[in-house]
Amino acid sequence: SHSIDLAVIPGDGIGQEVVAQGLKVLSAVLPEDVKLETKEYDFGAKRYHATGETLTDADLDALKQHDAILLGAIGDPSVPSGVLERGFLLKLRFAFDHHVNLRPSKLLPGVATPLAGQPEIDFVVVREGTEGPYTGNGGTIRKGTEHEVATEVSVNTAYGVERVVRDAFARAQARPRKKLTLVHKNNVLTFAGHLWTNVFAKVAAEFPEVTTDYLHVDAATIFLVTDPARFDVIVTDNLFGDIITDLAAAVSGGIGVAASGNINPSGEFPSMFEPVHGSAPDIAGQGKADPTATVLSVALLLRHLGYEAGAARIEAAVAADLSERGDAEKAARTTDEIGDALAVRVAS
Amino acid sequence: SHSIDLAVIPGDGIGQEVVAQGLKVLSAVLPEDVKLETKEYDFGAKRYHATGETLTDADLDALKQHDAILLGAIGDPSVPSGVLERGFLLKLRFAFDHHVNLRPSKLLPGVATPLAGQPEIDFVVVREGTEGPYTGNGGTIRKGTEHEVATEVSVNTAYGVERVVRDAFARAQARPRKKLTLVHKNNVLTFAGHLWTNVFAKVAAEFPEVTTDYLHVDAATIFLVTDPARFDVIVTDNLFGDIITDLAAAVSGGIGVAASGNINPSGEFPSMFEPVHGSAPDIAGQGKADPTATVLSVALLLRHLGYEAGAARIEAAVAADLSERGDAEKAARTTDEIGDALAVRVAS
Ligand SMILES: CC(C)[C@H](C(=O)O)[C@@H](O)C(=O)O
Ligand SMILES: CC(C)[C@H](C(=O)O)[C@@H](O)C(=O)O
Repeated sequence: SHSIDLAVIPGDGIGQEVVAQGLKVLSAVLPEDVKLETKEYDFGAKRYHATGETLTDADLDALKQHDAILLGAIGDPSVPSGVLERGFLLKLRFAFDHHVNLRPSKLLPGVATPLAGQPEIDFVVVREGTEGPYTGNGGTIRKGTEHEVATEVSVNTAYGVERVVRDAFARAQARPRKKLTLVHKNNVLTFAGHLWTNVFAKVAAEFPEVTTDYLHVDAATIFLVTDPARFDVIVTDNLFGDIITDLAAAVSGGIGVAASGNINPSGEFPSMFEPVHGSAPDIAGQGKADPTATVLSVALLLRHLGYEAGAARIEAAVAADLSERGDAEKAARTTDEIGDALAVRVAS
Repeated sequence: SHSIDLAVIPGDGIGQEVVAQGLKVLSAVLPEDVKLETKEYDFGAKRYHATGETLTDADLDALKQHDAILLGAIGDPSVPSGVLERGFLLKLRFAFDHHVNLRPSKLLPGVATPLAGQPEIDFVVVREGTEGPYTGNGGTIRKGTEHEVATEVSVNTAYGVERVVRDAFARAQARPRKKLTLVHKNNVLTFAGHLWTNVFAKVAAEFPEVTTDYLHVDAATIFLVTDPARFDVIVTDNLFGDIITDLAAAVSGGIGVAASGNINPSGEFPSMFEPVHGSAPDIAGQGKADPTATVLSVALLLRHLGYEAGAARIEAAVAADLSERGDAEKAARTTDEIGDALAVRVAS
């Protein structure tokens, strides 16, 4: 018999509501012989206001004991921009070496897209999660004066780039189309660009079956709206990945259905799964949030822990749920009703 | 009587063809009492292969004598990525302090967009042109080894940010909707983000009629495809501007019609006008390139030099040309035919 020991971080805003549905569906999908244990953590704006803490060493020690982490959303307008992002979200990704940030984009039947002609969209972005301009390197001099200078340093290492590029090649190799696109801006960011391009070429030699392709990030945004079907797997740096995955989510059904995993492939630290959307404080507590992205993040979590059948069941349930309902019906359902519907489907 | 002394840089690939049409339309639109002088420069891949030079000090001295510069496109697969970009395009932008990179996006009637529902799109991006991650700061150690580290430094100064933000506010103030959106990633790039955010707030106080707004760059890409009508003027950093203007071009008719100006507002150095598209070597010399983006860049050039009537005439001619023809007819015309049609329209 197996067990899953899950850290649950509902967080701020709609985080609470969507995580509740994610757990509901998770309980429903697990076979009886798999024991689910969950422990809730109170990270986010409330705790920050109460204690000034975002994520302490003791917190990290506690989180480390779990098999995986499910996160709702972190962020609130009452907290200055950057405090929770740098102090919690990014701190956790860096502390647990979540270097593979996995963001699948699949336009499911019956799901609205802003693009004309309902194109076929089914790709996954492997975003580097621990380097690039996200390291917090940089600084400010003469702050607040007319002579202020602020720098941000993008740090890229052969070690960091190679492991994520290799992960992306392996994922491409395992998919039917076997195609991998590197997205960067190597004509301008030539130092980091050369590193990414050379490492990519080197690892490509190990995967002769994978077709490769390179796009500048600006050109990639064009293709994401004019020809998203061309993409299979994309590998890219932390910042470019942040940008193109929001765009990818927008064209493939919106952030209401965009799931993500912050993965530590070695298993040295627990991986974290979260919807791409934020805490949406404007609609929090009203039952208006779409929990689908969280439920799909639970599927990624299950797959990561080796429960492929459960993951596939959830994905099939979401696909069926979305395709069988009209837009009006979809818009009218509460957060809870969507969670219930998905829980029923995965159980049956 | 007036005169325009223009430096013309056809460049590589389709650059030659589209610039010829731009000049044709320019000649046709200018009143008889305005004398047009042009001098052609041979920058680009050919010169680089012949001499190893991309842009020398003597070149800069020569270019400096002109009132403005019209550029086709620079770039060729025979030249390693980055050489012409850093050695010519960016070198020129930096040398001539082109800190206002102006990129209007307007979806004209009759123009195809990948977005469903033909939304109203009419905004302009003011992209900073001389700072950010484009400065070439950074470097590489242990190149080619498994211990390589490559950095890219984004440099942001109060001086550089304030002048472009003020320019953007002035442009927003002059437009009917008077709305300005700052796009950055201030929750992650906190050093540069604070600088941009604080300078933006400070300058906003001088423009009480302008409504302001802030979006993270990732969220901005979502709105560019789900609600582009919300944008009026956008101001942003060099890299974010590069990315979102390609996306903006894609949703508002494609890079075939996207114009840009690299502007030095003080007039200390000549400003440069160029289509957003590249040299497209795959279709070069076949008469397939759409010169519309270059012709619209000529309109920006005229407006910059104070010839508002001519600029407006060109824009009206392009709008009429595009709205009066069916997609099949548009696709069938050669580069030359489009240029001829526009020249006839602006002259009549
Ligand atoms: C909230 C922010 C720190 C985060 C990021 O930039 O990575 C978010 O945009 C995301 O994509 O997960
Ligand atoms: C070619 C490249 C240097 C350039 C840039 O990144 O600015 C181009 O993409 C542009 O947008 O003008």
